[in-house]
Amino acid sequence: MSKEKVLLAYSGGLDTSCILKWLLEKDYEVLCFMADVGQNEDFNAAREKALKIGASEVIIRDMKEIFVEKYVWPAIQTGLVYEGRYLLGTSLARPCISVGLINTAKEKNCTYISHGATGKGNDQIRFELSAYALNPSIKVIAPWRLPEFCERFQGRSDLLEYAKKHGIPVSATTKSPWSMDANIMHISYESGVLEDPGHIAPTELYQMTQNLSNGLDQPTRVEITFNYGLPVRASELLSGKTMERPLDILNFLNKIGGEHGVGRIDIVENRFIGLKSRGVYETPGGTILHCAHHDLEVYCLDREILRVKAFLSSKFSDYVYNGFWFSPEAEFVRKCLVESQQNVCGKVLVEIFKGHVWAISRESIKTVYNQELASMDVHGTTLSPYAATGFIEVNAMRLKEYHRVHGTPNMTKPKFKLF
Amino acid sequence: MSKEKVLLAYSGGLDTSCILKWLLEKDYEVLCFMADVGQNEDFNAAREKALKIGASEVIIRDMKEIFVEKYVWPAIQTGLVYEGRYLLGTSLARPCISVGLINTAKEKNCTYISHGATGKGNDQIRFELSAYALNPSIKVIAPWRLPEFCERFQGRSDLLEYAKKHGIPVSATTKSPWSMDANIMHISYESGVLEDPGHIAPTELYQMTQNLSNGLDQPTRVEITFNYGLPVRASELLSGKTMERPLDILNFLNKIGGEHGVGRIDIVENRFIGLKSRGVYETPGGTILHCAHHDLEVYCLDREILRVKAFLSSKFSDYVYNGFWFSPEAEFVRKCLVESQQNVCGKVLVEIFKGHVWAISRESIKTVYNQELASMDVHGTTLSPYAATGFIEVNAMRLKEYHRVHGTPNMTKPKFKLF
Amino acid sequence: MSKEKVLLAYSGGLDTSCILKWLLEKDYEVLCFMADVGQNEDFNAAREKALKIGASEVIIRDMKEIFVEKYVWPAIQTGLVYEGRYLLGTSLARPCISVGLINTAKEKNCTYISHGATGKGNDQIRFELSAYALNPSIKVIAPWRLPEFCERFQGRSDLLEYAKKHGIPVSATTKSPWSMDANIMHISYESGVLEDPGHIAPTELYQMTQNLSNGLDQPTRVEITFNYGLPVRASELLSGKTMERPLDILNFLNKIGGEHGVGRIDIVENRFIGLKSRGVYETPGGTILHCAHHDLEVYCLDREILRVKAFLSSKFSDYVYNGFWFSPEAEFVRKCLVESQQNVCGKVLVEIFKGHVWAISRESIKTVYNQELASMDVHGTTLSPYAATGFIEVNAMRLKEYHRVHGTPNMTKPKFKLF
Amino acid sequence: MSKEKVLLAYSGGLDTSCILKWLLEKDYEVLCFMADVGQNEDFNAAREKALKIGASEVIIRDMKEIFVEKYVWPAIQTGLVYEGRYLLGTSLARPCISVGLINTAKEKNCTYISHGATGKGNDQIRFELSAYALNPSIKVIAPWRLPEFCERFQGRSDLLEYAKKHGIPVSATTKSPWSMDANIMHISYESGVLEDPGHIAPTELYQMTQNLSNGLDQPTRVEITFNYGLPVRASELLSGKTMERPLDILNFLNKIGGEHGVGRIDIVENRFIGLKSRGVYETPGGTILHCAHHDLEVYCLDREILRVKAFLSSKFSDYVYNGFWFSPEAEFVRKCLVESQQNVCGKVLVEIFKGHVWAISRESIKTVYNQELASMDVHGTTLSPYAATGFIEVNAMRLKEYHRVHGTPNMTKPKFKLF
Repeated sequence: MSKEKVLLAYSGGLDTSCILKWLLEKDYEVLCFMADVGQNEDFNAAREKALKIGASEVIIRDMKEIFVEKYVWPAIQTGLVYEGRYLLGTSLARPCISVGLINTAKEKNCTYISHGATGKGNDQIRFELSAYALNPSIKVIAPWRLPEFCERFQGRSDLLEYAKKHGIPVSATTKSPWSMDANIMHISYESGVLEDPGHIAPTELYQMTQNLSNGLDQPTRVEITFNYGLPVRASELLSGKTMERPLDILNFLNKIGGEHGVGRIDIVENRFIGLKSRGVYETPGGTILHCAHHDLEVYCLDREILRVKAFLSSKFSDYVYNGFWFSPEAEFVRKCLVESQQNVCGKVLVEIFKGHVWAISRESIKTVYNQELASMDVHGTTLSPYAATGFIEVNAMRLKEYHRVHGTPNMTKPKFKLF
Repeated sequence: MSKEKVLLAYSGGLDTSCILKWLLEKDYEVLCFMADVGQNEDFNAAREKALKIGASEVIIRDMKEIFVEKYVWPAIQTGLVYEGRYLLGTSLARPCISVGLINTAKEKNCTYISHGATGKGNDQIRFELSAYALNPSIKVIAPWRLPEFCERFQGRSDLLEYAKKHGIPVSATTKSPWSMDANIMHISYESGVLEDPGHIAPTELYQMTQNLSNGLDQPTRVEITFNYGLPVRASELLSGKTMERPLDILNFLNKIGGEHGVGRIDIVENRFIGLKSRGVYETPGGTILHCAHHDLEVYCLDREILRVKAFLSSKFSDYVYNGFWFSPEAEFVRKCLVESQQNVCGKVLVEIFKGHVWAISRESIKTVYNQELASMDVHGTTLSPYAATGFIEVNAMRLKEYHRVHGTPNMTKPKFKLF
Repeated sequence: MSKEKVLLAYSGGLDTSCILKWLLEKDYEVLCFMADVGQNEDFNAAREKALKIGASEVIIRDMKEIFVEKYVWPAIQTGLVYEGRYLLGTSLARPCISVGLINTAKEKNCTYISHGATGKGNDQIRFELSAYALNPSIKVIAPWRLPEFCERFQGRSDLLEYAKKHGIPVSATTKSPWSMDANIMHISYESGVLEDPGHIAPTELYQMTQNLSNGLDQPTRVEITFNYGLPVRASELLSGKTMERPLDILNFLNKIGGEHGVGRIDIVENRFIGLKSRGVYETPGGTILHCAHHDLEVYCLDREILRVKAFLSSKFSDYVYNGFWFSPEAEFVRKCLVESQQNVCGKVLVEIFKGHVWAISRESIKTVYNQELASMDVHGTTLSPYAATGFIEVNAMRLKEYHRVHGTPNMTKPKFKLF
Repeated sequence: MSKEKVLLAYSGGLDTSCILKWLLEKDYEVLCFMADVGQNEDFNAAREKALKIGASEVIIRDMKEIFVEKYVWPAIQTGLVYEGRYLLGTSLARPCISVGLINTAKEKNCTYISHGATGKGNDQIRFELSAYALNPSIKVIAPWRLPEFCERFQGRSDLLEYAKKHGIPVSATTKSPWSMDANIMHISYESGVLEDPGHIAPTELYQMTQNLSNGLDQPTRVEITFNYGLPVRASELLSGKTMERPLDILNFLNKIGGEHGVGRIDIVENRFIGLKSRGVYETPGGTILHCAHHDLEVYCLDREILRVKAFLSSKFSDYVYNGFWFSPEAEFVRKCLVESQQNVCGKVLVEIFKGHVWAISRESIKTVYNQELASMDVHGTTLSPYAATGFIEVNAMRLKEYHRVHGTPNMTKPKFKLF
């Protein structure tokens, strides 16, 4: 009888190489899958390594374009930010890679998929929830959650010893004192020395962005055009260099943002499983796009739609962070958010300089912005200057009535005292 | 019979000087009130001017300390940001000044208060709602909403002519092509050339912050300590310079932020009356404090409390922007927000450089951050590495069931197409 | 020169008859508009009366079908309830009538519309916001907000005297000690004796529903079928009587609900202008439909979609109550809500008896309800009985960590004591 | 060496009796704990049974008063309702019982607690999350999630056989075709024939409430007094019978509600683990209290506070349903909700008849309800009749501007068509 087939999400690193070997020892046939989502990887070397260890096949998919168009662009359009700061670069890549995994598993008749994510992180959840949503009957082998595997490999030294024993090549370079996850949208850094939230992240860590002191000495201005909230064009003012394909736009803005040191954050965040963890991220192009989109959105959207949209956006961010990209709620909320972007069409000029992105002008034919009406210097025709009197009187009435019964609201007392 | 007394919120500028004269012509006795909330004003010159025009008294109150302690500090503590960007510098000053106005009106037996805010803006609403909430029987004269006044003064030239005719001194300097409102927290700029949202704001506009190209060449690191979410200490690392009184902390951070060009935004916002308007703001110290507070908050707060707190905070921001600082809802929501800050105690180290503020480390004894538990390198004791298997299985079940009935959620279709 | 034309929303009652005459005295040409939205009115008598007073034309539109299909049905579909109780019968009729008014004004070249709503109520706002949204250049004459009119007519006796003087026929029956507003969805009662919220509403007030003591002695069971959240069929089980057109369904359920005394509420509510007012409502058919829809919705919708939908529904209810049926936010939120109803297809059996409606069974092919999975008696295959262990362990971890730092959450202290 | 001690939440039924025996076989010393939260149980018989099987001790705690005062009363005060219908009778009892369990485990030096809840339900989660929150180091044995136990006991017949073999007395009466959970607040029914949501629940099922056809023939009127949102007095109008202790009030209202058939619901709900399940509930007194509280709350609360409060209340309901009564978020949100009730003081008169509860009058000195101001018959002094003109004009402006750019909002199109 033929062996059962496992499709392993392979990175080329120590962990997944050992997992590959271990799965072979468990008598599976193992195929390796690598998604190119823009990480800086020597895919050929990784392929050689996997085949050498015993993989029966290594499938490498270039998913950069799909990742940008189907995941990053919608994230910009819907304004995704987790806990006010994190632009979700890793969270967005996971469902994308999962699609690659599940599709490949189907093509290659694999009953199982396997990955090297640990039992405390978000990525195991994002991979597996995506996988189950796409194919409920898929089976998952997560070695870092198997007692047998965990007991055998209690730390890095056990992995190194196992690798040595089985002739698995180990990179000569010393392991960096943190781990990183990269794709075309961002690089995240965590673990190791970063686990102490009071430890300042070393500046040599960053790979996509310059340190501010080495950044360009002149600001760069880029005009970004959006259609229905999606970026459709980015044009550098000085050179006139212009990009229109999503992947080109993101690469272009990554380069500009990188040269100016844009998009670094150093945060503590709440993982889905309830832990707090510290992460350092750099998202140069995404930060520029997010800033421009936000500016245009407030310019174009009706105030009340903006309020509801902000609520929906925060829900969607949580869904995506927690691994529910493929879920009924994400599908629903995303449709609503896309609908909210109907009028988010126009251009924003952003200035990028020294780690800073700044919208400095904007235009749209879809906005209700009315320069004459807004003008403080014109009495105007749409709104009588006297109308506000009644507006204020009506709004004040509730406050007066409250005062009649309860006195002035107490806004000065609870100073340092807590109730 | 004695004349009715009006207390006029006086600025010393052309508008309120003409209003002062006009009120006198209408046979009121007029007292002038000036609140020093940190604007850079020659209060003595303004006093002389008002008395010369005919004010029977000019009352000047130093409200800087009250403003910082009772308005700015709570705003930092409760995380107030309007439409994702504006730190509400003007919105917070209005109720503070209104308290000064109403208290002075009471002391001086004034039946009326008056102000020079126009009929399209937010400030008329903020002044008057605060005034009515504090004293429901106060009467308000808002000349820019009176047909008689508006017909007489159709534009700036009418005011200038009136001033000339009545010997009201007019500043020799040409009017700047925008208007500004300053206090110790921020300066806002609007009107004039800024009314075109596509017009780039001139760099000479800014008064609190350096242009980035002139900013300091070395980053500054400041450690900020919070107690219950309120800033209680700011210490510059290099010099050891340390401030503890709120007013001192804000001045200190304004200086540092100003030298680094921190806290400029250029935005379109939605006014309470439903207009969109363009404003340019600089809030150096406030931006630093907000950044540090946000970092500590995520570090210290339980994830679920953070979610609810974010919702409440956005409500409170709207209340404050719209003029409802003194309202039952603001009182209630603020109490809830203060309660949420019970564990927001600790220190954040921020780096300030080239317009950028960045939390780089933090510590607190109130956080549940657990370095060992978070560590990817330790199997840990609090959480079994196997627990996540069941967690994922349960979470996946809803997705599998949805797939059973409805197939995979459609997350790829609504690309550019709108429904 | 020809006179300016006013289209008056005419009711046939004392107020609008006097307004009609008054407008004629002001030298307008006045046309009267009556929308038949199911109120029990003698439209021909009203027409005669208006023509006799001097209206140049009386336009009566049967809007019952439009009202039910375009306003009531969407309200059921989107689950509209104001402040937890009021099904918005009047609020929904106002924009419908406004469409009739604005269209007729256009056809008849009227520059103005006019209505008899008072200056403290919601209806003036609903009429006028709808009118302006549909035709921003329409002009509105609201006599009850004109000083000239209010001074002339200080109370009902002034109106009676004016009617007598101008030969306006006045109904012989004494005015009931409350006012009412009726349409095919509901009747509302307010004013007069009801203004004291402590005064028990007299039982003779109700016109659509039986008092419970006179209700039928046997329960009625009706099966209601929904498609995308919209009622498409109602079938009485015993008689087999079945309705499929929206207007027929509503009439049918009004009859059944009325015989059983269903759908009465007696509440205090918050008006848009900030007042609290007391209203008594009877909404027999709407209550049955709402109950059935709610039951099917929870049965069919994904849990997380249900949560977001509930939030959106409460926003939409506020919009509609406040007069913003025709607004960008209502358009947006309604689209989202309609999208949420994609799977709300199926049947609900409701029992109606003695003022009570009760869903007693339901079926749908769109639900993910899984009888085998839900069964407590079957170990099941989709979900391993052991999975919950890990699920609980992960969820408990956050609580344990909180306990480690802060102890047990204090859920017992704040008993009667307020902070 | 002495045996490890387990404290078993014992019910006296077949499942926990078998679990008791099984734990003894596993060589534990087993103590049994029973909380009297008002279920109709022969506690002495259960004690005898447990001792006979081999329990070393049976601890029975009367927790009725604690349950009502610390759990039911706060739930009324904070307005808890799950998914719009379920008053959370079981969800509230679980943390209460858990306090009893954990306290007793501590007193008796038990290292373990154990319970008979199954692996698909909510109760296992509620028990265990409460237990871990109260004592993070407690250990839990949940036999229905242990493979060994589940394999041995695959169905009821295995339990019966085991009972017979070990001389465990089995109730002679046939098992009812559903399961039930009772306490002083409610009885819930689920499982068995109820698992088919299309199956109509048999009328003989209900134990707390009369069928409507057997209900009293005259309505009962009860005046309920609240202080800070908590019920402090209930008085039957006709008899004058009055209760003031929470437990007495609830018993009293249960009796009245029961006689009138009040508080039955038949619903499908979403369990925490993501399943949908069908439950039938009867909550007579709780339904009356909830209705009265809701009425008084809208009467007393400021409109804007009411909106925020409703949001918080729905969050708290989810927390409680999901087992997070003892959690940081529940502690926080509850404090906010209690704060919102500051003015919810006063009386509501409710009429109870034929399954229906209906607030018919209310009074409070804390409300801002202003009869004169609300009156449609009085022009009034607080609010000028002309103020609404400006209020409407300002509100209309945003709609007019939207119309200028985008035309009338489309509220008629998306009829049956989905996007």
